[in-house]
Amino acid sequence: MSWNTFGRVLRFTTWGESHGPAIGAVVDGCPPGIALAESDIQPFLDARKPGQNKFTTQRQEADEVRILSGVFEGKTTGTPISLLIENTDQRSKDYSEIANTYRPGHADYAYDAKYGFRDYRGGGRSSARETAMRVAAGAVARLVIPEVTILAYVAEIGGDAVDPANFDAAEIARNPFWCPDAAAAERWEALVDDARKAGSSLGAVVECVATGVPAGWGAPIYAKLDADLAAGMMSINAVKGVEIGDGFGAARLTGEENADPMRPGNDGPRFEANHAGGIAGGISTGQPVTCRVAFKPTSSILTPVESITRDGEATEVRTKGRHDPCVGIRGTPVVEAMLALVLADHKLLHRAQCG
Amino acid sequence: MSWNTFGRVLRFTTWGESHGPAIGAVVDGCPPGIALAESDIQPFLDARKPGQNKFTTQRQEADEVRILSGVFEGKTTGTPISLLIENTDQRSKDYSEIANTYRPGHADYAYDAKYGFRDYRGGGRSSARETAMRVAAGAVARLVIPEVTILAYVAEIGGDAVDPANFDAAEIARNPFWCPDAAAAERWEALVDDARKAGSSLGAVVECVATGVPAGWGAPIYAKLDADLAAGMMSINAVKGVEIGDGFGAARLTGEENADPMRPGNDGPRFEANHAGGIAGGISTGQPVTCRVAFKPTSSILTPVESITRDGEATEVRTKGRHDPCVGIRGTPVVEAMLALVLADHKLLHRAQCG
Amino acid sequence: MSWNTFGRVLRFTTWGESHGPAIGAVVDGCPPGIALAESDIQPFLDARKPGQNKFTTQRQEADEVRILSGVFEGKTTGTPISLLIENTDQRSKDYSEIANTYRPGHADYAYDAKYGFRDYRGGGRSSARETAMRVAAGAVARLVIPEVTILAYVAEIGGDAVDPANFDAAEIARNPFWCPDAAAAERWEALVDDARKAGSSLGAVVECVATGVPAGWGAPIYAKLDADLAAGMMSINAVKGVEIGDGFGAARLTGEENADPMRPGNDGPRFEANHAGGIAGGISTGQPVTCRVAFKPTSSILTPVESITRDGEATEVRTKGRHDPCVGIRGTPVVEAMLALVLADHKLLHRAQCG
Amino acid sequence: MSWNTFGRVLRFTTWGESHGPAIGAVVDGCPPGIALAESDIQPFLDARKPGQNKFTTQRQEADEVRILSGVFEGKTTGTPISLLIENTDQRSKDYSEIANTYRPGHADYAYDAKYGFRDYRGGGRSSARETAMRVAAGAVARLVIPEVTILAYVAEIGGDAVDPANFDAAEIARNPFWCPDAAAAERWEALVDDARKAGSSLGAVVECVATGVPAGWGAPIYAKLDADLAAGMMSINAVKGVEIGDGFGAARLTGEENADPMRPGNDGPRFEANHAGGIAGGISTGQPVTCRVAFKPTSSILTPVESITRDGEATEVRTKGRHDPCVGIRGTPVVEAMLALVLADHKLLHRAQCG
Repeated sequence: MSWNTFGRVLRFTTWGESHGPAIGAVVDGCPPGIALAESDIQPFLDARKPGQNKFTTQRQEADEVRILSGVFEGKTTGTPISLLIENTDQRSKDYSEIANTYRPGHADYAYDAKYGFRDYRGGGRSSARETAMRVAAGAVARLVIPEVTILAYVAEIGGDAVDPANFDAAEIARNPFWCPDAAAAERWEALVDDARKAGSSLGAVVECVATGVPAGWGAPIYAKLDADLAAGMMSINAVKGVEIGDGFGAARLTGEENADPMRPGNDGPRFEANHAGGIAGGISTGQPVTCRVAFKPTSSILTPVESITRDGEATEVRTKGRHDPCVGIRGTPVVEAMLALVLADHKLLHRAQCG
Repeated sequence: MSWNTFGRVLRFTTWGESHGPAIGAVVDGCPPGIALAESDIQPFLDARKPGQNKFTTQRQEADEVRILSGVFEGKTTGTPISLLIENTDQRSKDYSEIANTYRPGHADYAYDAKYGFRDYRGGGRSSARETAMRVAAGAVARLVIPEVTILAYVAEIGGDAVDPANFDAAEIARNPFWCPDAAAAERWEALVDDARKAGSSLGAVVECVATGVPAGWGAPIYAKLDADLAAGMMSINAVKGVEIGDGFGAARLTGEENADPMRPGNDGPRFEANHAGGIAGGISTGQPVTCRVAFKPTSSILTPVESITRDGEATEVRTKGRHDPCVGIRGTPVVEAMLALVLADHKLLHRAQCG
Repeated sequence: MSWNTFGRVLRFTTWGESHGPAIGAVVDGCPPGIALAESDIQPFLDARKPGQNKFTTQRQEADEVRILSGVFEGKTTGTPISLLIENTDQRSKDYSEIANTYRPGHADYAYDAKYGFRDYRGGGRSSARETAMRVAAGAVARLVIPEVTILAYVAEIGGDAVDPANFDAAEIARNPFWCPDAAAAERWEALVDDARKAGSSLGAVVECVATGVPAGWGAPIYAKLDADLAAGMMSINAVKGVEIGDGFGAARLTGEENADPMRPGNDGPRFEANHAGGIAGGISTGQPVTCRVAFKPTSSILTPVESITRDGEATEVRTKGRHDPCVGIRGTPVVEAMLALVLADHKLLHRAQCG
Repeated sequence: MSWNTFGRVLRFTTWGESHGPAIGAVVDGCPPGIALAESDIQPFLDARKPGQNKFTTQRQEADEVRILSGVFEGKTTGTPISLLIENTDQRSKDYSEIANTYRPGHADYAYDAKYGFRDYRGGGRSSARETAMRVAAGAVARLVIPEVTILAYVAEIGGDAVDPANFDAAEIARNPFWCPDAAAAERWEALVDDARKAGSSLGAVVECVATGVPAGWGAPIYAKLDADLAAGMMSINAVKGVEIGDGFGAARLTGEENADPMRPGNDGPRFEANHAGGIAGGISTGQPVTCRVAFKPTSSILTPVESITRDGEATEVRTKGRHDPCVGIRGTPVVEAMLALVLADHKLLHRAQCG
């Protein structure tokens, strides 16, 4: 089956291929009366868009979003919001030779195995280009949760992590890596540039934090806030792992070390730690919701990798197209968007049941 | 909202509280004509059930499952299968003093914040007792995918990992830890016993592998096989992290290191590595599907932890009830069940669209 | 596929066969804090239950409902509410001879065609016994919409309609037909008794009205209030038609005749007619929501009807079991329940999006 | 909530307003490998489009559909199919005076009551213009069920019904009324023209038949084939009633009269009647699936109707814009489309569970 809709009350459906005429999203269930214009969405797309520096793919896309429905006199009407971006820089010829070859680590073989054939131009539907529409939908979701502040940043590239002691949120937008540690950003410049020149690629870990989430969002048992976050993050291209709070680190702690003691506070409890990442029993606790996401290195590399053709013959694949040396960088705005989308959905879900 | 249903075609809904009269599940969408009896389910429940050795909670539950519908003359009819287990050992008095106190790290505060009050007996709905019904539903799911073999085991307790060189699948059932490494099992015996005696608790990492999954299962973009696995695993009590394939480890590899080269094989490609964990673009590749799940140490410990009462007064909490020193151990059959449930659902989803 | 769940936010799942050990429902998404006990549900089941007079099947079922979860200290907790009724009067032997014969007009052949075999005891899952659980779930739904008053009654049996001039709501509970017209009830007594004695059966039309529904419930375009009502009513056993407001009658009116003029009122508009049945554009208008439901005569009759065996041989079928001469009568509480369930769901849906 | 998606496996989502820049649909879950081009869809849109004769609204829309995704090298890829139609003849000025007035019988008041404000241009989202996208999606659905033949026609206008004895399927496309009875078509010409000239409007009944549906489609209990049909049909603008098979007529029959006797046939049973409309227990029986749909007369009439303004003041409404004298006529292709969409969905649903 194909299943291109995410969310329960605030749902969005994306469509489009890397090299088709356009990509789009339909956001359904948005509350009415929210001020919304293209200019509320475009900055987030600009932050994600390719070709902005040498550390990302050189594909040039304007990524100009149009709102085709659901807004009247500058406000959402409560009806579906259709968002559309035209594809303007599809160099299909780049991909012609791999029409009959499976790129290892890509979805080529899996799509063929599932569907019998595939749109091979730029990965077709499996391209990360789809994530542009998540960013656009996420911009709408942010407006549904004005009480929440969302921040994502790259915490690690190629195994080189930021130093928490150096964390400076203001630094994130100052470097091309969404890096909150100026020293790390400097190191990564060399690291990523070397990978780029070598035609290699690097993995990354992205962290995200939502502050201002009130206690009570989350729908146990099977729409737990953390379960929906895990699904949303894992559905992003190249993601292979998701942690909430201390994640795998918590598996190495004792119960005493992992405790999040509570003290009387002015407005609900004051927590003395946040190993849990702001979620208990699948429901937000009022603490910051924290999540870590692992991006693999892209499989598009210059080094030849053994593969097979559609006919099952042995061959080798080298990627000569335009690609990101570290897809986690451009994944950062996507992580932010998914966090916003999940939280906005759960805000509405919560009020459905609990008023 | 409450959302107690999981799955898309093969869906199951669970209900019940730790100290209510019973817990249950309704499995809907199971194909007709499959031989099914209580005896197909009971062994999996027996494997999960508490009180079997000193390393798990001493709650004594027979956990005898009854099939109340959906089976006729020994075969599934295609109608909903109702499964029920009576609760027989609910010592409600154990919990009476914490009715007005929030246990840090538990869902107590979050449930109160969401719903305004809570069933405090044994955690009510947030108790891991709910997972018994996943194990029961998972036993049904296994029968839907006879081509698949599922195996889960504990790979790490309290930071002490098994040695892959010692991996012996036959060992898993021989020790109380689902440990595939005899040497590690011996070490864990002391480790877990010490934690138990100290009234402390330990985290764990559970690994699971499904072999025999054909290429083509998974529904991009928002019902990717890995996204559904992530949601399913993250919804298990105490889980804080999920990895597919190399997971966070992949974030530290280069594209060259992370490649899964393909060679011509007899029946589809032969992959020379499986960093991807058997999933590309959200679709199975025919390789083993691998997943790692992080369990935090249970928050139920003897050491007093600072907390607050429902009225917001400062207090301390010590857990005197019966609890697991390492919930990851009993989580292992639950991980297996969720893997079976997600795969069975995706088998049916795949044939819905692709015949 | 099997799909035994209804609703979007307030969802219920039913399970169970006519002659299995029990039937049940799981109601998920109910708001927390609502006072709920078996005694809130039982009266509605008693109203529906068989064997109460000679005009309904003589099957004797106590239909005692038990609440197994989701309620604590007398109030809903916001977690799933499991409802269970044991089957106590299953005379399986009544049905043994039709195991290999298809009863015309029943679901026997369709179930076999779909699933390959069927639970033939009393119709198995296709039995109207399933509707008892709708009535139970509907009793919960009523508590979610205390602002709404729901009333259903039989408007027509065997083509003999009530006279609107005689309508008296107080009459409905005074006769065994849920008939609001005392004169019609008297005529029906003879009509239905004749059918019963002849082993024949009669169709019926049931009308239902919900007053107190505020303007604004309904989710266009594909969860319109009327569309969900149509689905809910059509899913009741033996139902073949659904009308909202004037229904098919509206197709014979001109635009002038069908107009529902609006005048200034104290609290929203005052409508001067209600051809629309309280719904415009799929959204409630604040007028009474009205719906008409057509029940066919049951196919279980004494007169032999030509049929075939499972092996395709010609045969005849006469129904010798206990059956209702007019299933529309016992369908009336089910219509009420479905109306309550749809409205309660839409109340919650509305507040999810619109606060 | 807003809910603009229909279907379970083959799902479509529509978006767009009457006077926005465009309208569209995303069809998700379509099987791969089906030949599909705009030319497969356009004829159905042409059949529905306005302005083709004096019996329909004079709005002039080219209604040219574009496929923006999901098709590669002329075949569906299994990924979402995005369909878009630009709005070219939106005369917004026609509607400016009713921005502050509620048109009785329209959704104006209900939308305001729900969402707080509305896009008043041509009815915005509540306009029947949305149904163009159902027709487009329906054209895709037809390709999923090549074994099924679908036919809809107008059976009654303003209470004047076709004579079954005159039924001639070939006649349907020969007159502007989709009328299968040449004599009735001639009568309707005068009838509808009179209504048009008088600025009045007429209701209609549309019948549809699907032949070639195999036994076994339908998902009891809550996705019964007839329940899904009822929801789909009732969601069409101006529809107030739905009947399956004999519908309300069955309520006036005895069990003997309503029986559908079965005889041995070559390929499954041979039914001697089809009162049931091809569906028993919510599952297709292999007989033609028949459905009747009641359309009210449009509320847009020249005769002034009492109404109120947004501020609650008394006023009168006359409709001066371009409107259909009998919306049931243009509803006929929409009924066909919904029938195709429901059947295609159930074909896929059936094979999900039953292989």
